[in-house]
Amino acid sequence: MQDRLRAAGEAVAAHLDDVLRPFGTDDVAQAMRYATRGGKRIRAMLVLEGALLHGVAQARALWPAAGIEAMHAYSLVHDDLPAMDDDALRRGQPTVHVKWDEATAILTGDALQALAFELVTHPDVGDGELRADLARGLARAAGGQGMVLGQARDIAAETAPRPLDLAEITALQAGKTGALFAWAATCGARMAGADTGALTRYAGALGLAFQIQDDVIDVTGDTGAAGKAVGKDAAANKATFVSLLGLDAARQRAAALVDEARDALSVYGSDAETLRQLAGFVISRKT
Amino acid sequence: MQDRLRAAGEAVAAHLDDVLRPFGTDDVAQAMRYATRGGKRIRAMLVLEGALLHGVAQARALWPAAGIEAMHAYSLVHDDLPAMDDDALRRGQPTVHVKWDEATAILTGDALQALAFELVTHPDVGDGELRADLARGLARAAGGQGMVLGQARDIAAETAPRPLDLAEITALQAGKTGALFAWAATCGARMAGADTGALTRYAGALGLAFQIQDDVIDVTGDTGAAGKAVGKDAAANKATFVSLLGLDAARQRAAALVDEARDALSVYGSDAETLRQLAGFVISRKT
Repeated sequence: MQDRLRAAGEAVAAHLDDVLRPFGTDDVAQAMRYATRGGKRIRAMLVLEGALLHGVAQARALWPAAGIEAMHAYSLVHDDLPAMDDDALRRGQPTVHVKWDEATAILTGDALQALAFELVTHPDVGDGELRADLARGLARAAGGQGMVLGQARDIAAETAPRPLDLAEITALQAGKTGALFAWAATCGARMAGADTGALTRYAGALGLAFQIQDDVIDVTGDTGAAGKAVGKDAAANKATFVSLLGLDAARQRAAALVDEARDALSVYGSDAETLRQLAGFVISRKT
Repeated sequence: MQDRLRAAGEAVAAHLDDVLRPFGTDDVAQAMRYATRGGKRIRAMLVLEGALLHGVAQARALWPAAGIEAMHAYSLVHDDLPAMDDDALRRGQPTVHVKWDEATAILTGDALQALAFELVTHPDVGDGELRADLARGLARAAGGQGMVLGQARDIAAETAPRPLDLAEITALQAGKTGALFAWAATCGARMAGADTGALTRYAGALGLAFQIQDDVIDVTGDTGAAGKAVGKDAAANKATFVSLLGLDAARQRAAALVDEARDALSVYGSDAETLRQLAGFVISRKT
């Protein structure tokens, strides 16, 4: 599975390099390349494996796989800004606003979001209905009722009069992480015109497990291994799955969600083995 | 013409209100409504008049008209940020980061960009090929080879070792303003499956005239009438059409571009009268 994750990452990286070549050498173009390098490529892998599962050619699926990674990269660049999480380190490297400056980071994120839509609507993806459907789904998952809403509530929670409760954090994370996970996991099924129910359930459980593990890493990880600052939630006195459940119960909850994610794939039989392994990876990762 | 501009503005504002109602009452949702209010609505009018010219129903055209206004609003919210132009006033009101805070302004811009793509891909716009084509064109016009590139070069020019020359400023503005003007002006023709050549030429000349007039307002306007800070370019010692050509020659150039824009519409005869008047409005406006 880790080999396939690496291969997916390399294929998407090469595709993004090709796509970004005509963008030239301006700071923003350089920062777009910088910000889309590295990372775990979990979202790209969800797209590529979902496509494989439905007999969709990788040459078609690479476009939305690169698109979701561009969208994810934009969200990280903006999230790291001083006015947001104020992080200096990402994937073990200086964040964009540290390496360049804040204006470049804002514009780089903006350009990466536009790029995501350019990629998912590429003619090679499929017919117009499909491309319009993917773009609209991506817009809804990323916007003010999806990821951005989750991020805004996450930031608001830091100064809220009372900490969030478990239901509120779960809802927040469904927007912040879950909506784009669901888009990525169901993309291949949509490209094949197949039912998206099983992969929607898989992605819902996986996204929540992913976020719980993020909270676990923030408590148990070290900056060197994680490639980003850790211990931030406790320092900000922020409610997390770990602060609300305790470390052991949070880990158990994540493991139960991984089982749930795997069970959701039963309809695919052994063809979905890589996606099952990916679910296990999500809660074993240290970064 | 001003009546139609007002009517277009009101129709788009009502449409955006409807669209944003389900976004709820979080700060970001409120700021999205705030940032999309007011303004001259020139881009929306280009969409609506281009649609009318080609027999496309307003009910279809309102979606991309609202979409381009959401895109424009996002660019203003981010442009006004402290790390960018650092403006406290926009359309006579406090900018989003002043009324709320920087994090809210960053997220509001991000959500408005996503909203733009959600709107242009709405099923009521037309068939899938059209919606995918509009979304892809919008992504290219807004991104790192269009508007964002122009904005980045505009900011870089403030600290460049030498001022930009006329060719460089013209190229910069073609990205910063021209690309989205062209998308808006040709949208209706695309919706009708008609040729976009005449409207592309119209938009090219109009966009440049618009930007020259912006530079003129920055020199001759006052903040009260303009609803935004003026005199900023001279204070930043920035090359503009006015600093390079002189005030009179800049005005003459804008007037010649308006003639060029009007001439481009000859194929439409008297049907394009409103778009011709809009070109005149662009260089007579004070805000």
